[in-house]
Parts: sequence; C-alpha cells; structure tokens
Amino acid sequence: MGRTVIGVMGPGPTAREWDCSTAFELGKLIANEGWTTLSGGMAVGVMDAVSRGARENGGLTIGIGPTADSGGMSSAVDIPIVTGMGSGRNVINVLSSDVVIACGMGPGTASEIALAIKAGKPVILLNDADWATAFFARLGGKLVQTASTPEEAIKKARAYLA
Amino acid sequence: MGRTVIGVMGPGPTAREWDCSTAFELGKLIANEGWTTLSGGMAVGVMDAVSRGARENGGLTIGIGPTADSGGMSSAVDIPIVTGMGSGRNVINVLSSDVVIACGMGPGTASEIALAIKAGKPVILLNDADWATAFFARLGGKLVQTASTPEEAIKKARAYLA
Amino acid sequence: MGRTVIGVMGPGPTAREWDCSTAFELGKLIANEGWTTLSGGMAVGVMDAVSRGARENGGLTIGIGPTADSGGMSSAVDIPIVTGMGSGRNVINVLSSDVVIACGMGPGTASEIALAIKAGKPVILLNDADWATAFFARLGGKLVQTASTPEEAIKKARAYLA
Amino acid sequence: MGRTVIGVMGPGPTAREWDCSTAFELGKLIANEGWTTLSGGMAVGVMDAVSRGARENGGLTIGIGPTADSGGMSSAVDIPIVTGMGSGRNVINVLSSDVVIACGMGPGTASEIALAIKAGKPVILLNDADWATAFFARLGGKLVQTASTPEEAIKKARAYLA
Repeated sequence: MGRTVIGVMGPGPTAREWDCSTAFELGKLIANEGWTTLSGGMAVGVMDAVSRGARENGGLTIGIGPTADSGGMSSAVDIPIVTGMGSGRNVINVLSSDVVIACGMGPGTASEIALAIKAGKPVILLNDADWATAFFARLGGKLVQTASTPEEAIKKARAYLA
Repeated sequence: MGRTVIGVMGPGPTAREWDCSTAFELGKLIANEGWTTLSGGMAVGVMDAVSRGARENGGLTIGIGPTADSGGMSSAVDIPIVTGMGSGRNVINVLSSDVVIACGMGPGTASEIALAIKAGKPVILLNDADWATAFFARLGGKLVQTASTPEEAIKKARAYLA
Repeated sequence: MGRTVIGVMGPGPTAREWDCSTAFELGKLIANEGWTTLSGGMAVGVMDAVSRGARENGGLTIGIGPTADSGGMSSAVDIPIVTGMGSGRNVINVLSSDVVIACGMGPGTASEIALAIKAGKPVILLNDADWATAFFARLGGKLVQTASTPEEAIKKARAYLA
Repeated sequence: MGRTVIGVMGPGPTAREWDCSTAFELGKLIANEGWTTLSGGMAVGVMDAVSRGARENGGLTIGIGPTADSGGMSSAVDIPIVTGMGSGRNVINVLSSDVVIACGMGPGTASEIALAIKAGKPVILLNDADWATAFFARLGGKLVQTASTPEEAIKKARAYLA
C-alpha cells in the first residue's frame, strides 16, 4: 500500500504572507499525521512553505515541478518529480493526491481545484477568499469543503481518509 | 504565419441544450471569419457542436482529444490530435488558441479558463452563469471578457485580434 | 472522418543536409497525395523542411511544438499546436499520425519511433543509417518498414492506408 | 537537497524471467546504497520487481504510472505518482532520475533510453541484448554505459554520482 499523500496547492510568486505562513503550518501538521506532502515543488510561495513546514517535522516531501530540471525547486523537497510540462503537470498534482488542500488563490491554483473536482478528488479550501469559495462550492458540490485554519483542514482530511 | 485559431471550451456529457446550440452557432461564425476552430475533440457536448457548426460553414476543425486513439472523437473534427493524456491535454487546448471562448461551465471548462488566464490568453465567457462569470472576472482581470451571444463573442475576438 | 495525417519525425538542429532535402521532398509528395503533414513544428531541421515542402505544394501542415508559445515554430506550419511539454509531446506526434515516417536519426527521433511501435503505429524508416534500421526492425517487427527514397516511403504509406 | 533517485526502466507484461530477477536484485542494491528507486510503477514486470526488491531492503519507492488512478500500480510502490498520461509519462521517468538503468528491452524501454539521452541523462544498460546495446551506444555516446550484473550497474552509478 502506498503512503497517504496530501497535495497542497497554492500560489507561487504571488502568494501573500498569510498564504505562506498558513502553508508552513499545514506542512507541519501533515508531517505530524505521518502523511506525505505533495506540492508543485518550486522554491517559492505556498509550494516552498508547505515543504519547509513538513520537513521541519520530519515529513517526506514530494514536489512535481513544471520545469525540465530541478534547478528552481525548493530545497525542502525530498523527491523532485521533474516533468518539463509546465502547467501540464497540474493534473498530476491532483491525481497523485488522496486529498487536495488549496491554500490561497490564483489561476494555477484555480486550475488545480477544477481538475481535482473533475477527477472526483476531495478538495479542502483553506483561504479567506469568499469570492473563490462560493464558486468552487457550486462547481464541486460535496467534493468541496472549506476550512479556516490549518488545524481544521487536517481534521477534515482525517475524517475523509478514515 | 499560422492560421488564427479560436479555442472553444465547454462541457462534454453534461452540456445543456443551450450550451450546444450556442456552440454550434459559434462554430458557424468562426468558420465565416476564416478562422480555425479548436476544441477538446470528443463526440459530445460543446466539443462536438462547435465542430459541426464550423464544418457546416466550411471551416477547418482541430480536436485535441484526451484519449489514446481517435475512436470517440467527433466526426466533424478534421484533424484529431490524439494525446492520451486525459485532462493533461487541457493546457494544450488553451496554449494553442489565439483566443479562448468558454461556452457553458463545468470542472473541465473551469480548468481551461484558469489555465488560459495563467498563460496570459484572452478569454471570452459566453454563458449565463453569473456565479462563474464573477469568479473568473476577478481571477483574470482584463484578460476576461463576457459575451451574451455568439455574435458578441466573435465581435470581441475580432477586436482582440485586430 | 478526419483527414489522413502523416507524421514526419527527424532531427532538429543536428539534421544533416540529406535529412533536410529528403524531408522537403517528402513534404511535397505528402501534399500531392492530399494528406496532412504533421511534425514537431520547430523552425529547424526536418520539422521545418517537411513543412516547407508540404506548403510549397499546397498541403496543410500541423506542428506539435515542445515550447510554451509558438515563437520558435516554423513559419511553414499552418496550425501550431503549442504544448509546453518539451519531449513529453513526442508521444502526441505519433498518436496523432496514421503513419509515421522517420527521416534521419537522433535521440528525439529514436524516442518517437519507439513510442510509435509501442502504440502499434506503422513506421517507415527513411534513412541511410543501417545501425538504426536493424535495431528498429528487431524492436518493431512487422510494424517497421524501410525506404530509401521519399517516393518509396510514400508508396509504402499508400499501401498501408489502402 | 533532494535524495538520489535511480530510475529503473524495463518491460512490463513482456518482461522475461531474467529481467525480473535482475530488477529485483537491482532494487535491493539501490536500497542498500540509501538511494530512492523510481520506476513506471505498474504491478508487472521490471517495474514491480525493482520496487519489491527495494522495499525488501527498506528503500523508498516511487512509481510514475501511466493510468489515471493508482489501481494497477505495484503494491511495493510507496509513492504512486498518477499521471493519466499514458506513455507521455515516460519523459517524466527519466527527467526525475539522477541515473537511468535500463533492465531488459522493449518499445517503452527504448523510448525511455532515447529520451534520457535527449535530456543528457547518464544511462546504464543492464541486459544481454547486444543488438540494443550497440544501437544505444552509438546514439548516446559517452552518456551510455553497459553492465552485465546488478552489482556492476550499481558500481557505475556510484562512480557517476561521486
């Protein structure tokens, strides 16, 4: 049996302070559960923060990068999956995750949430962007839940995986 | 110089009657302009309808399919691009289009709009789903326009391409 | 029904003079048959030569490019399919072709021939590289044929498609 | 810094007894070195055997599967990367590996060796197929080495990584 993999999606260069500190905390909690953290892998924004948080608590980190080498990937990623496929790799991020947690919002993140819904994956929205939450709740129905803290997101992931 | 390619994205099996009749009309108008129609290629929903409309007016139709052979693709597609990449092909749909027109709404379509915004492509939303329009207008800013008829969508595409 | 699509695979920057002149002639003959030419799309080597040959005879040309925009693609490509997937697009080249003709040899071309065999596509090797021909004949069995001139390649493609 | 990842490529359903026993041994040795094993992930042939060997010695195993869910993947894969991209995932296998070891031969394996050479990755051919070895040695030049036992392959990988 494979390990439990939690995909954390969120903005890169446009991530806000809140997105990154929340992602860092989320990574720590994911590692605490003994789960593996999966992200888009780059050394920036939510991808970097969640990987650093997970590593700080001894968690395993997977990064599925868009570029053709691992040069720009986060140093907190243990296993860089190098796709060279740009945003074409977004679908791999969600298909490889047991649960998808979106932290923050942007076009790449929105595409990943939509692809997760398309694939029937559970999504937990962890952000304060009501305009986005309403949209995805309608798009995804029961697949989409919201959380306002990392702790709440983990609790909902745990309930789903039970 | 390559031809002008208009990508029309929309639901497959879950498309509504309105989505399909609008897409059919859109295909006819795209062909009238001398433009090439690009879609997700399958023999269902908006993909099929826009291809049939374009062909009826002598337009060239490209379909970028998710499956590993052309078996389920629309018979109105002239050039089936067979990817075998599932939803991984959604990014190709938008990168290969000069303008993206979304007709109807669903998870796959939403992912394509988001990927188009991520890639800096102009998007025209042609639907009556206010809940979706508001979200993408905020996500994409000036890249996103709306239209309420196929004629208006074509007019906006023409203005963009001028 | 879609058009008949002939994929022509061959080296880019490392193509030899012979590869390019042969590809150019091949493109002309493919267009003469009324078939569509598909290539890797870039403005260099066999991809460029076959597209120019096809266009000279009024043929339609599709280019499936590795980059994330159409900037470096051949000006003789009518329909640039922009994947942003690097060599990940090689599989699309062969899946989208009714017959694959390899003109010249190199790592990218070798990967495409192997992927074509994997997918059960007929391959015609048009080159003077005996070392490569022997390998692929053994790898692909009946799927692989050889030709020593563009005319012979077309004749074998025609026989296959009949 | 990411872990050292050794990609082991080889046939699936068509693998010979020798391919599988060699791959199993190879997996054990890779784990002994403290390296991570990467394969195509399916529950068959070399992919399965190398993952089982690695797990038996406590190694971490990554599988990059072609299908859209992890259903057919090897139970010895710790981290299933689910691409849904068919053979389009072959390029990810080699880009994500520090060294590629090919064990056995077939069309998929040949495509991966060619893609590795294209990407400038070192390849070690571990098989008794002289017809294939000669071809890839010529195609890849100094990037390609051969080995006749798993121990020799590991020794050459170690020398490369030093």
